[in-house]
Amino acid sequence: MVVARTIEELNEARRDLRGEVGFAPTMGALHAGHLSLIERAKKENDFAAVSIYVNPTQFGAGEDFERYPRKEEADIALCRAAGVDLLFMPKTIYSEDEPIVRAPLIGASILEGAIRANHFDGVLTVVMKLFNLIKPQRAYFGKKDAQQLWLITKMVRSFFMDIAIVSCETTRESGGLALSSRNAYLSGNEKKEALKLSESLFEASKLIKRSEIRSLAIVQAIAEVLKPLAIDYIAIVDRDFKPIETIKKGETIILIAARVGATRLIDNMWI
Amino acid sequence: MVVARTIEELNEARRDLRGEVGFAPTMGALHAGHLSLIERAKKENDFAAVSIYVNPTQFGAGEDFERYPRKEEADIALCRAAGVDLLFMPKTIYSEDEPIVRAPLIGASILEGAIRANHFDGVLTVVMKLFNLIKPQRAYFGKKDAQQLWLITKMVRSFFMDIAIVSCETTRESGGLALSSRNAYLSGNEKKEALKLSESLFEASKLIKRSEIRSLAIVQAIAEVLKPLAIDYIAIVDRDFKPIETIKKGETIILIAARVGATRLIDNMWI
Repeated sequence: MVVARTIEELNEARRDLRGEVGFAPTMGALHAGHLSLIERAKKENDFAAVSIYVNPTQFGAGEDFERYPRKEEADIALCRAAGVDLLFMPKTIYSEDEPIVRAPLIGASILEGAIRANHFDGVLTVVMKLFNLIKPQRAYFGKKDAQQLWLITKMVRSFFMDIAIVSCETTRESGGLALSSRNAYLSGNEKKEALKLSESLFEASKLIKRSEIRSLAIVQAIAEVLKPLAIDYIAIVDRDFKPIETIKKGETIILIAARVGATRLIDNMWI
Repeated sequence: MVVARTIEELNEARRDLRGEVGFAPTMGALHAGHLSLIERAKKENDFAAVSIYVNPTQFGAGEDFERYPRKEEADIALCRAAGVDLLFMPKTIYSEDEPIVRAPLIGASILEGAIRANHFDGVLTVVMKLFNLIKPQRAYFGKKDAQQLWLITKMVRSFFMDIAIVSCETTRESGGLALSSRNAYLSGNEKKEALKLSESLFEASKLIKRSEIRSLAIVQAIAEVLKPLAIDYIAIVDRDFKPIETIKKGETIILIAARVGATRLIDNMWI
């Protein structure tokens, strides 16, 4: 495994990867969710590339950029063990007064975008930079960040980028909690409270199996399970993130965001 | 020459160009300035590609998008005669609620950007799309649109795009007027008035040859020659578009913008 810490080192290492490259961009603090992306990248390509970069532009003022978990040595060991061929860990990939990618006005103003202003501008900008640096044939993203996955897919289509975006299932702890680097913020008691997110989605799933298709009824059931957490949103949308009043199989995503203590968690279910 | 009118046709034609591609993006109404870009693209690459697309997003409200000259048949004939291999003439390359490239805040707020709000967002967005579609090794731009050339170079660097930006000398009529598709708007009398732009730059050049290096003195001399045109700006900047008080050879650009009747014209000189 080559660990490239500068763009020059990356370019040199990339030239040696003659074949198809699968890429998983990450902010580090790697967990089994990341490893499942890497595993798939390895399986479907000749080489697997990973980036670890806590991207400052996707954090808002007052968010957790400074305290976001950084575990450089452990991450390198995990990547090596997972068979990663190229690990890119730059100090920065920004300079002064640069152009940025501005996320779609409507698509980035809803859900996460309504709460985290300019978050998706930062995400799309860094992903565009990383895609052009790594030049992968395929890039791997988790379904847990569903709106991010959707907006990146839109960007790739809008800018005619020659990269297949592969969406990967959310990895969960045995209790159901969706894996997230931010779970490290949770105390033991908060971790129990956090289970309400996945439980509320499993409850929705049960209702749908019993033929409930009204979005409103499902939202109410989810809200009931989430109590007493502070809910940012419960949304039921189609694959284009338009709100829908009735569930259609194969076309629906249920998204939730809630706060457990000081920690903001998101989860979702694709139906 | 293949004329591709859809993205599918373009992709198919592009696959057949096995070798280096030089690309000149245009808005059509081709003149000798465009032809000099194409000639250079042909000379320095295995294939020359040209796009003709009047990009709506770079025109502001009240600007000349509707009446911008469109000369499809003549343009096709000129490209064919110039030996263009691939001509891309799409109807549109936009869809709904897309991400855009937002031009650098400072770099796009000065000079042309101060007068034409969001103009450079439109330019960078369409150029990013066209670059990803055409996949050239080199792209050719005229020095006449100096700020545009600078911002495109910045974009390519910021987003790590694997394309060399080649800047080409401004082509002028024998009287000195810089070629522009917008010159078609000028009446016979206005065309004479328009000569003041290039004349003012030649006057500046004479002063500099006589060892004048004070920017202020040169700006005053230019303003004198431009009378009685309405001046948008006269600026003396370094290659990074920072204003400078004294001329340094090899590091300076003098830029002017003025109105001749209802037509806005720009010109510049690289020293």
